[in-house]
Amino acid sequence: MRIHRVHLPTLQEGEVVLTGSEAHHLARVLRVNVGQEIKAFDGAGLESTGVVQSVHDFQVILELQEPRASDVEASLKITLAIALLKGDKLADVVRQATELGVVAIQPLITKYCDVKELSANKLERLRRVAQEASKQSGRSVVPEVREAVKLREVQIPLLSILAHPHTSSSLNDVALGKGSPLTIFTGPEGGFAEEEIKFLMSKGVTPVRLGARILRAETAPVALIAALLLPEAL
Amino acid sequence: MRIHRVHLPTLQEGEVVLTGSEAHHLARVLRVNVGQEIKAFDGAGLESTGVVQSVHDFQVILELQEPRASDVEASLKITLAIALLKGDKLADVVRQATELGVVAIQPLITKYCDVKELSANKLERLRRVAQEASKQSGRSVVPEVREAVKLREVQIPLLSILAHPHTSSSLNDVALGKGSPLTIFTGPEGGFAEEEIKFLMSKGVTPVRLGARILRAETAPVALIAALLLPEAL
Repeated sequence: MRIHRVHLPTLQEGEVVLTGSEAHHLARVLRVNVGQEIKAFDGAGLESTGVVQSVHDFQVILELQEPRASDVEASLKITLAIALLKGDKLADVVRQATELGVVAIQPLITKYCDVKELSANKLERLRRVAQEASKQSGRSVVPEVREAVKLREVQIPLLSILAHPHTSSSLNDVALGKGSPLTIFTGPEGGFAEEEIKFLMSKGVTPVRLGARILRAETAPVALIAALLLPEAL
Repeated sequence: MRIHRVHLPTLQEGEVVLTGSEAHHLARVLRVNVGQEIKAFDGAGLESTGVVQSVHDFQVILELQEPRASDVEASLKITLAIALLKGDKLADVVRQATELGVVAIQPLITKYCDVKELSANKLERLRRVAQEASKQSGRSVVPEVREAVKLREVQIPLLSILAHPHTSSSLNDVALGKGSPLTIFTGPEGGFAEEEIKFLMSKGVTPVRLGARILRAETAPVALIAALLLPEAL
C-alpha cells in the first residue's frame, strides 16, 4: 500500500495535532486509520515517519519520529529559469520539472513572450501545482516558484546554461559538480532573441545544444532536466 | 529564417510537382517564393534540399537535390510501448516522444488502464500528432503509431526495458549498442499489475528504476527517452 504523505510547516519528534484541511484530508479523503504509518515532510528537505494515534473529522493526531534529511532529493540542485509560455503550458512544465527534482522555478519575461506578465492568481496556481507535484512524487522539497522578472533583471548564478538549438557547445563542456547549484535558461515558443542570447552569454551563461531535433518550448526544459537528473539514479 | 519542411511519400532527384493540400499549405499558409530553399523528407529517414521553381494556389513545383540519409535521427532506435492514458495525455506523450526522437509507438491495453480501447478516431489523431511533431522538430522519420494491443499479445523485442519504481536494477545494467533497437515499456496511471511485471520479466524485459522521485505515467516515458537520447548530442 502506498504511504500517505503530509506536508507540515515544521517537523518535530513527538505528538503533533493536525486540524483544519490537512486533518480533514487525512481523515475523510485518504481515510487513514489508527496505527497506520504516514510520512510527514516540511518542504525544505526534512521528513519524518509518523503513526496515526487518533482520527476525527477535523483532528488527526500523529506520533512523529525524529526528522531526518530526505534521500529522495537530487544532489544536483537545479533552478529552472523559464520564459512565460502560452495557455497552461507553464503549469505543465512546473509539474514535470517538480517531479523530476528541480529546487526552484524562476519565470522570465522575454522579448518574444506572448504573455508579458504573470498575474498573482497565475503565480498562486503555479505554486499549488508545485506543491501538489512535490507531494505526489514523494519529494521532501517543494520547489520555490518565484515572481516573474524581466530577463535583464534576473540574478544570474555562477553556473548557468542556456538551451540553444544553434550552438556547437555541449553539456560536456560545462563542469557540473555534485551538490553544486545549476540554473537552466529556456526560452518561449519563439525562442530567445539574438540580443538576449548575447546578454546571457556576456554574463557567463553557457549555451548548450540539445541535439539535432528541435524541441518545443515546453519539451526542452523537461528533457534537459531529465537528462541531467535521471542518470543519478540510472 | 527557418527553412520550411515538406513531407513527400517518395523522394527523387529532379523536378517534383506538388498539388492539393501540401501545395496549398506551401503557397498560401507558408507563402513560399520562387527561389526559396525548402527541405523535403520522406518520413522514413531520407531528406532532400529543394528550391521552389513556381508557385500557384494549388500547384507548387520544386527542384530537388539527390536524397540522402538524414543526420537528425538518433542512432539509438527507441520504440515506446505505452499503456493507454486518460484524456489527452497519450497525445501529449506521442508529441514529446516524437520530438525527442522515438521511431515507433505501440499503445498497450493493460490491467489498470482506465481506457480499455483506442478507437480508430483516436488512433488517427495520434498519427496526425506524430506527423505534425515530426515536421516541427525537423525530423526525417515519422514514428509509426501502431494499433493498441493487449499487453500479453504484444511482440516483445530482444532488448526491452520496463520503467519500474520499485526495482534496484538501473539502466547501466542494460547493454545498449549504437544502432540497436530498444523498446521501453511504461504503464498507465495506476502502474503495471504485479503479474504484468512478472510476465514482462519472464519474456526478458529488464526492469529499470527511474530514480528516487515518483514520476507520473505521462512524465516517465518522456524523461526516460530524454535521458537516453539527449546524451548523444550533449
